Amino acid sequence: MGTAAAAADVVIPACAAVGIAFALWQWFLVSKVKVSAYAAPGNGHHHGGPVFRMEDDGEDVGIGGDHDEEVEEGAGDRTVAVARCAEIQSAISVGANSFLFTQYKYLAAFTAIFAVVIFLFLGSVHRFSTDSRPCQYTRGRTCKPALANATFSAIAFLLGAATSVVSGYLGMRIATYANARTTLEARRGIGAAFATAFRSGAVMGFLLASLGLLVLYATIKVFGLYYGDDWEGLYESVTGYGLGGSSMALFGRVGGGIYTKAADVGADLVGKVERNIPEDDPRNPAVIADNVGDNVGDIAGMGSDLFGSYAESTCAALFVASISSFGADHDFAAVAYPLLISAAGLLVCLVTTLLATDLFMVKTVRGVAPALKLQLIISTVLMTVAALVVSFAALPANFTMFDFGAVKQVKNWHLFFCVATGLWAGLAIGFTTEYFTSNAYSPVRDVADSCKTGAATNVIFGLALGYKSVIVPVFAIAVSIYVGFTLASIYGIAVAALGMLSTVATGLAIDAYGPISDNAGGIAEMAGMSRRIRQMTDALDAAGNTTAAIGKGFAIGSAALVSLALFGAFVSRAGVADVNVLNPKVFVGLLVGAMLPYWFSAMTMRSVGSAALKMVEEVRRQFAAIPGLMEGRAAPDYARCVRISTDASLREMMPPGALVLLAPLLTGTFFGVRTLAGLLAGALVSGVQIAISASNSGGAWDNAKKYIEAGASDHAKSLGPKGSDAHKAAVIGDTIGDPLKDTSGPSLNILIKLMAVESLVFAPFFAAHGGLIFK
Amino acid sequence: MGTAAAAADVVIPACAAVGIAFALWQWFLVSKVKVSAYAAPGNGHHHGGPVFRMEDDGEDVGIGGDHDEEVEEGAGDRTVAVARCAEIQSAISVGANSFLFTQYKYLAAFTAIFAVVIFLFLGSVHRFSTDSRPCQYTRGRTCKPALANATFSAIAFLLGAATSVVSGYLGMRIATYANARTTLEARRGIGAAFATAFRSGAVMGFLLASLGLLVLYATIKVFGLYYGDDWEGLYESVTGYGLGGSSMALFGRVGGGIYTKAADVGADLVGKVERNIPEDDPRNPAVIADNVGDNVGDIAGMGSDLFGSYAESTCAALFVASISSFGADHDFAAVAYPLLISAAGLLVCLVTTLLATDLFMVKTVRGVAPALKLQLIISTVLMTVAALVVSFAALPANFTMFDFGAVKQVKNWHLFFCVATGLWAGLAIGFTTEYFTSNAYSPVRDVADSCKTGAATNVIFGLALGYKSVIVPVFAIAVSIYVGFTLASIYGIAVAALGMLSTVATGLAIDAYGPISDNAGGIAEMAGMSRRIRQMTDALDAAGNTTAAIGKGFAIGSAALVSLALFGAFVSRAGVADVNVLNPKVFVGLLVGAMLPYWFSAMTMRSVGSAALKMVEEVRRQFAAIPGLMEGRAAPDYARCVRISTDASLREMMPPGALVLLAPLLTGTFFGVRTLAGLLAGALVSGVQIAISASNSGGAWDNAKKYIEAGASDHAKSLGPKGSDAHKAAVIGDTIGDPLKDTSGPSLNILIKLMAVESLVFAPFFAAHGGLIFK
Repeated sequence: MGTAAAAADVVIPACAAVGIAFALWQWFLVSKVKVSAYAAPGNGHHHGGPVFRMEDDGEDVGIGGDHDEEVEEGAGDRTVAVARCAEIQSAISVGANSFLFTQYKYLAAFTAIFAVVIFLFLGSVHRFSTDSRPCQYTRGRTCKPALANATFSAIAFLLGAATSVVSGYLGMRIATYANARTTLEARRGIGAAFATAFRSGAVMGFLLASLGLLVLYATIKVFGLYYGDDWEGLYESVTGYGLGGSSMALFGRVGGGIYTKAADVGADLVGKVERNIPEDDPRNPAVIADNVGDNVGDIAGMGSDLFGSYAESTCAALFVASISSFGADHDFAAVAYPLLISAAGLLVCLVTTLLATDLFMVKTVRGVAPALKLQLIISTVLMTVAALVVSFAALPANFTMFDFGAVKQVKNWHLFFCVATGLWAGLAIGFTTEYFTSNAYSPVRDVADSCKTGAATNVIFGLALGYKSVIVPVFAIAVSIYVGFTLASIYGIAVAALGMLSTVATGLAIDAYGPISDNAGGIAEMAGMSRRIRQMTDALDAAGNTTAAIGKGFAIGSAALVSLALFGAFVSRAGVADVNVLNPKVFVGLLVGAMLPYWFSAMTMRSVGSAALKMVEEVRRQFAAIPGLMEGRAAPDYARCVRISTDASLREMMPPGALVLLAPLLTGTFFGVRTLAGLLAGALVSGVQIAISASNSGGAWDNAKKYIEAGASDHAKSLGPKGSDAHKAAVIGDTIGDPLKDTSGPSLNILIKLMAVESLVFAPFFAAHGGLIFK
Repeated sequence: MGTAAAAADVVIPACAAVGIAFALWQWFLVSKVKVSAYAAPGNGHHHGGPVFRMEDDGEDVGIGGDHDEEVEEGAGDRTVAVARCAEIQSAISVGANSFLFTQYKYLAAFTAIFAVVIFLFLGSVHRFSTDSRPCQYTRGRTCKPALANATFSAIAFLLGAATSVVSGYLGMRIATYANARTTLEARRGIGAAFATAFRSGAVMGFLLASLGLLVLYATIKVFGLYYGDDWEGLYESVTGYGLGGSSMALFGRVGGGIYTKAADVGADLVGKVERNIPEDDPRNPAVIADNVGDNVGDIAGMGSDLFGSYAESTCAALFVASISSFGADHDFAAVAYPLLISAAGLLVCLVTTLLATDLFMVKTVRGVAPALKLQLIISTVLMTVAALVVSFAALPANFTMFDFGAVKQVKNWHLFFCVATGLWAGLAIGFTTEYFTSNAYSPVRDVADSCKTGAATNVIFGLALGYKSVIVPVFAIAVSIYVGFTLASIYGIAVAALGMLSTVATGLAIDAYGPISDNAGGIAEMAGMSRRIRQMTDALDAAGNTTAAIGKGFAIGSAALVSLALFGAFVSRAGVADVNVLNPKVFVGLLVGAMLPYWFSAMTMRSVGSAALKMVEEVRRQFAAIPGLMEGRAAPDYARCVRISTDASLREMMPPGALVLLAPLLTGTFFGVRTLAGLLAGALVSGVQIAISASNSGGAWDNAKKYIEAGASDHAKSLGPKGSDAHKAAVIGDTIGDPLKDTSGPSLNILIKLMAVESLVFAPFFAAHGGLIFK
């Protein structure tokens, strides 16, 4: 083992440890904001609105005051506000916990079964033989039996699933921990509130990125004890880690997405439209479910999603490296290049976060959005430098890469270029997304303007905007692919994807910041805090909305690159020399693959629709059945709404999940690897477009509505105020956009990645026994 | 020349002549319904609504009666009704004529320029040399110079463009000729009205199919006088015919689509929503423009579209045959197999039409839809038999097909299977489309039901329905592709496409029937005819709506197969041996190609939106500025609305047209044939999905609205009546669906075909000089 390899063995775990320590320190800082959980009886109950308890026994019906009576910030009232925030926070936290635990029970069963499937399929490659066999790529060496790969792949799958679940769960915990604290800090000013929300996001970002890195590193080292010299088998097994992470992400995104949108759409349709009460009004029975949704969908789901991307692109890169000269030379520092890039990314993000929270403190409301954008730019610039250093330090000057049977000569600076292209393409995609979804620019304003002629023109303009917003991101991805592929074949794509994801800790911090702020605003509203507080949390939230859109752009861009890298790795592992569109099997796969995102979206959108209808019925029922609810004298039954969202989302996540998991498995088994390759390529090129357009249409409708509501310009004022015809049209657009931008769009990211990584894991089986109907 | 070839030379022109004669006979039958064009002055003016004149001089403002006062069918009133129908018909006809002539002026300029571009590009292949050169595919023979191919390609392009324009124009003429006649025949009963509308559709269908066949046949024969033995050059030049037809179709569909939807959306938004007056109310200034739109968009545009498909698939098949053993053996009957299939199709459609109009007369309102569907089934069954006969009569028992550099052994019954698969796949697609868009089945009823919770859920369910409706058609297309490709390589796809299109005359008759009925209903409303008449035309229209959806399904399915056939022909002609997705150039092309339909749709949807906004402003202005308009005492300025639609659509059709025409040209020239191949494949697999889902979402919304309006079941009654909240939500969905189903969806068919045929025509240039930036 050379010095470089030894250094890698120090640097990787050290960076991961630093990341975890940093996350814990941020958590500690957040925890210094005190939210006392006790609700002074008689005091809180008699002053505020309904009590937020999740028990369903009916005895906790509080005697709420009028909702419009705001809690002033006197000394006694201050205690009341804190107590109510604590109650609400606890209700949200209990609801989120209960959903995630129920979901994890299902997922545990699924994971166990699927691990067995992996073992059986991969074990059958050489009929469960325990004999070693000649290596496939490294001539003359002996590799471990397929049975060992089957076993370790299944274990890696379980580890990936566990890490993903833990990441999502921790993200949800910190988010529900931070929301009320952000609300309370808003009393001290925008800077303090921003710092709390942002730090909490950072806790999630750093925990997730560090944990992902650490577990993957440890897996490689522990598996290595058995595999020894057999790096082909080692890194083949490790790909299971990506599959585990990604399949949890699928259910997290789909289930969480259905949850959050069913609650949101249901709450809005009855509350805002029929009953004419504001967003987040405590009288709305679905309001807690709605806020729970932010945490289980936008935080836990998104965390799992980005963790999945990260794990998958690393696995793809490691696998390709292992069958290239890095693997043949047993150059660990070079093989571990993707891990080193991620490790460097952690440090870069750490510096960026410190700059944001300590050096350039946010002082005004207007400063929030630029501060977040500045972080993206800073982290991108710093990471470019870091990538340069890592590329020259870890890589030999010349090496070769596996190139679908051929061999490609690559230089270390080529890989630097791949990483940098991915990094900057991500930024370009992010800023394009912002242009199309922020109401600071003309596209969203045109959409808002079209509300003048009603909901129909609003929808037409919004859909057209989404379609148009695809152009630049697709070109940015295309350039990354061309550069990556040309310089270093499939490995170039994998490291370009890693480049885009290397600043994931900062990206996640910024992403999670949005839902946390949103929740903080909801709590302020529910706790009946003063208008000033609400305005402040609204400002935080508005900035979060734009950055959430940027984050989605990154997520989709990186998903496209990750999928292509996995696709390439799959093709390599399956021993397919070409994927020729002129082959009818490939073309049929391509066509059907391009259809899958539509099928999948149809399922998820209908699921949201059905779940929302159930929620609407329940909310209507409660308004009709509970006397005094509209007047704020009685508390709604929040728990029942939470349960409806939970049940609906868990039931409805199954069919789309099954579609994604079964499509590659059945195609590979019955129609062979070429059809499967076509299927993956088709799903990729078609899914990317729908994902981007759905997210951006949804984001634009959301912000067009907010633009009218805020009334910050003469033009905006001419369309408003709230309740005007144009505003009503805008609300319809926003509601349509919800399932597009928060359920089907982001889920498609995972569809394309998951299908590819599953194909990669099962590639040995498909290559050996696939194509029962035709090969 | 063998007997078979001699027989082909008799059969093809004979069938075309029979088709034309049959069309003229049907036209004669329609013409027996008398519409006197004179408007008895004083009588008509004083009884009916406003006068429908297109002159803009202001002196024709009629003094209309109250619109709600219906014209009873007494003897004197009968003359009035006839006179008013004649006036309205004339106004529609003048508007349509004026639009088409203005459009054709633009198109003439475009066509002339593009013919020069073709000549220059193709002429430059061998630097405008006049020397003959060795043939590319048939070893040892001498072929004509590239300059000749350039010249004849340009001529074929002009011929295709001219035929397409004539087809569209004739379709519009017969449609505007038939609409008032259908209205008047409705007084004699449903059978007579149906026969008139259907016969008129048949005129269009037969004229178009026969003309297409005849001109193509004549072109081959005349070009053959020069080319002699050089069949490679001959059929390469003939591909220009497809490009000509298709580029006119593009502008016809896009321009017509923008026209019709701008008028429709504009008329509805002000008339139905703001002013609360019925559809087709003569007080609405945009009502004539709306009815003109049906003729220029749904009839002329669709006619050009299907003619384009037909011409392109024939050209693709002829080209591939010419470079296969058919060409090498100079077996004209075998080369002419696609033409023979089309000729047989004409006879099959003739028999089918006679059965419909003479044997199984429609007697009741309920009988209309089954009668139309029955025709599709009859024509499919008969055509299967006819294809069997043609396959065994025209083809040798064994032959070889060009298979991307290799050679494929094919038998005559293989080709029969390809044709039959295409034929039946078309039927399957048609019936799937019906299932998803007819309000007789649960999908549309669910969408209608979702209107209960407002426009947002309606849109969500409708979008999900569209996505879901893609599944079966894509599998049907995939099966056709697999069968066609496996049995006879790219030629198999081309003849499968031809199979799907072989019953195009019946298909067009059924398709055109819809807009004609729609127009008839509009005329009944505008002429203030009795409720009974209106109900009858509504029933005709409702059946037409469903069959229009079926027709769109066919159009998209055949477009997919045609594009693939053209793609294969392009790849063959460009000498590309494989289109490997693992090649970064191909993959980048694939990704960007999959984006193009989004870009294109964004353009067309925004165009519809902007044009509709202009129309809305004009209609509002007229209601405000013309005293007595709402009360029916003054006539609106129809001509101004017609002009707005005309101007907007002509201006707005340019950018999307330029995108489609330039994308292949620039990609081939700068990035070479592999990137272009990827681009075509990507646009194909992505465009098909959006086209199907957009058409079906739109159709479903339309019929969900009609379902609520008709109130034919308890469920439908619970959602209605007109003006209920659910109905309002349904109207919003319908308005959103308009540009999707009538502009962007059908235009995408043409996008994928046109890009492919353009690439095929320019293939010699790209192969010789393409790839200036990278090859």
